[in-house]
Amino acid sequence: MNIPDSVNPRVVIIGGGFGGLSLFNQLKNKAFQVVLIDKHNYHNFQPLMYQVATSGLEASSITYPIRKVMQDRKEAYFRMAMVEKIDTENKKVVTDVGTIYYDYVVIATGSENNFFGNAEVEKNSLVMKSIPQALKVRSILLESFELALQTNDVEKQKTLLNFVIVGGGPTGVELAGALAEMKKAVFPKDYPDLDVINLMQINLIQGADRVLDAMSEKSSEAAEKYLHNLGVVVHKNVRVTNYDGEMVETHDGQKFYSKSVIWSAGVKGNTVDGLAETVDRASRIKVNPHNQVEGFSDVFAIGDVAAMYGEKYQYGHPMMAQPAIQQGKLLAENLERLEQNKALKAFKYKDKGSMATIGRNKAVVDLPKSHFHGVFAWFIWMFIHLISLIGFKNKAIVLWSWIYNYFVFDRESRVIFRPYRTPNRE
Amino acid sequence: MNIPDSVNPRVVIIGGGFGGLSLFNQLKNKAFQVVLIDKHNYHNFQPLMYQVATSGLEASSITYPIRKVMQDRKEAYFRMAMVEKIDTENKKVVTDVGTIYYDYVVIATGSENNFFGNAEVEKNSLVMKSIPQALKVRSILLESFELALQTNDVEKQKTLLNFVIVGGGPTGVELAGALAEMKKAVFPKDYPDLDVINLMQINLIQGADRVLDAMSEKSSEAAEKYLHNLGVVVHKNVRVTNYDGEMVETHDGQKFYSKSVIWSAGVKGNTVDGLAETVDRASRIKVNPHNQVEGFSDVFAIGDVAAMYGEKYQYGHPMMAQPAIQQGKLLAENLERLEQNKALKAFKYKDKGSMATIGRNKAVVDLPKSHFHGVFAWFIWMFIHLISLIGFKNKAIVLWSWIYNYFVFDRESRVIFRPYRTPNRE
Repeated sequence: MNIPDSVNPRVVIIGGGFGGLSLFNQLKNKAFQVVLIDKHNYHNFQPLMYQVATSGLEASSITYPIRKVMQDRKEAYFRMAMVEKIDTENKKVVTDVGTIYYDYVVIATGSENNFFGNAEVEKNSLVMKSIPQALKVRSILLESFELALQTNDVEKQKTLLNFVIVGGGPTGVELAGALAEMKKAVFPKDYPDLDVINLMQINLIQGADRVLDAMSEKSSEAAEKYLHNLGVVVHKNVRVTNYDGEMVETHDGQKFYSKSVIWSAGVKGNTVDGLAETVDRASRIKVNPHNQVEGFSDVFAIGDVAAMYGEKYQYGHPMMAQPAIQQGKLLAENLERLEQNKALKAFKYKDKGSMATIGRNKAVVDLPKSHFHGVFAWFIWMFIHLISLIGFKNKAIVLWSWIYNYFVFDRESRVIFRPYRTPNRE
Repeated sequence: MNIPDSVNPRVVIIGGGFGGLSLFNQLKNKAFQVVLIDKHNYHNFQPLMYQVATSGLEASSITYPIRKVMQDRKEAYFRMAMVEKIDTENKKVVTDVGTIYYDYVVIATGSENNFFGNAEVEKNSLVMKSIPQALKVRSILLESFELALQTNDVEKQKTLLNFVIVGGGPTGVELAGALAEMKKAVFPKDYPDLDVINLMQINLIQGADRVLDAMSEKSSEAAEKYLHNLGVVVHKNVRVTNYDGEMVETHDGQKFYSKSVIWSAGVKGNTVDGLAETVDRASRIKVNPHNQVEGFSDVFAIGDVAAMYGEKYQYGHPMMAQPAIQQGKLLAENLERLEQNKALKAFKYKDKGSMATIGRNKAVVDLPKSHFHGVFAWFIWMFIHLISLIGFKNKAIVLWSWIYNYFVFDRESRVIFRPYRTPNRE
């Protein structure tokens, strides 16, 4: 890996997401050599990925080059690599570009989609966990309309224009809202020769008895009302059992004919080989309150991939940005304490609330002590997402894109960048 | 193709580039049904493609959805399709999504890279004619630095970081300048553990005896001085004879070891099957002064793909935006004249000049009656490119990106979007 030796202990961070970058930033001016490994050369802002998929934002406005984060740091290294395994016995991380020894290793590899073992659904569904995946969703979405123009068979057209979103969490709900806005404002103008209003359907399939089931009941109710008004059909208490690329089947015998199924029904920890014994049922790595992986003092996990069981969080913290950021921050302090032989501090999650937007002017916000929805919630949603983006340029371009999209009722990134007629599942 | 019949004659335009869109726009409010066919659903602004490749601009800020151009037009249709051939006998265009009959057909398919029959060079070189190609150049460029970090072998590092640009026309010169600016401002900060200044080389290989040989000698001279000051090594009177993916060979026995060769040494017409007899040596379709393809009154070619031989333009007009735009404009008028049985107007190219920028604060401009270079030329270059972009949003985002890049000395789109470790040539 070509990392020089140092008098300072080496911290290897695997993953440049919210957790990894938070830890990296907090280690500034501390006596560590830091090596960050990621298979991408950029950090991406996952909460806005669905807007890339629906042509509202350009991919690079929600990404930030990791090397730019490194520029003013001493003893900080980035390597673009794929981690193959952690060898805890020899204290080394094995990657596809070589091996690196660590004093401390931090697993911040986030989460991946959970298909609960259904390989057929996995093979045929679209996902939005990475930038290339979101761009593919965008291309397939737009290609569906182009293909629908090529037939007079209404059933075929309906199958092409039936967008089935599996999973009614924030990602599914926000995606459904964004698609519904396009159905109102963009597609009828772009495809005057298609009866968009009647042909295009948005079906949201949710396993629980309400959407946004991790939020308050008030917020779920408001979100469902918003979705209904936008023409999204919400199916609650329904689980998808199969999807062959043409037809979605559910546990209660319903059938949805669709060429585009987007899966957002669940995530699981994106673990690393070498720690099998410590992984729980959700593929998360079990850690103690100091984020130390069970049985180790020098191996840590933070963020989505870490399962820190506690009183209030029986199966670990919610898999979202805030726990990752907060754990990264505390871990920087604890690593210093370890070096100084001080007692470690226990992590205590400060729940700052959660929120989701459902189209134009509409959002739901849960704060620890209050819930609200509507236009003000929507402004709060935008403000929080804007200030959370890394980089002044990204903030400015996202803000400008939102203002433009709002007033012009448009989505100008509706461009199909993948090569002509790539088969849908490639 | 599902295009309804019309009482008005049907004009089928193949290609949504500068020529095709110019014609399309000028046909507004004229008594024609217009069908535009392109294999992309967007128009792209080719002159700034090299800035996408060098991380200065995001792809979607130089593209514009074709359907948006159509929105306020009656009797205008867009079909995303690949044209297979033109059947002039039966007056139809055959595509991969069906056949369409025409009253008039206009070939505006532009140009493609010309490798002058060298298949080995074609296989191993990078090009920048389309958005996916430009994004690939960007990825490979950035990956080269990541890979150079993985070795201590200086020769290997030099091969990875030797960027060879073949062709000293505007594209090659502007690309060389942009790379040189990154070498100065971005890469040393991003890769402090690499000796970027000594390892990274930019070689520009030009077959003619000066760069920008279609411009004035004064401009060539200034451009060469700028390139020299930026550290670009210009090789004149040198022709590339082979490139196997590792080593470039030239006609005079020079060897350049490089993993990244970008080909901008020539273009040829991107013809359509069915008109073989009318194609000249540069694969351009021979047309009369009314842009009618030789031997036809209802088949036209405009822009790069059209060869209109004339006194001043012995082998046809220069393959750039202006002739295409002007021909499109005149053709709209001539189509109407044809319908009215009026005499057709002959095309007369109004040369508005040409220009190229070579990095920060520097450009060369040739106007019909004067030549100048320097900071003022650079402002002119930016102004002309900005106003030529389609769409207010694109203009705003490009302007903002330029201002930001200028003052922050940065290129924030240096993100590798293609999947991890895609082999270089895929």
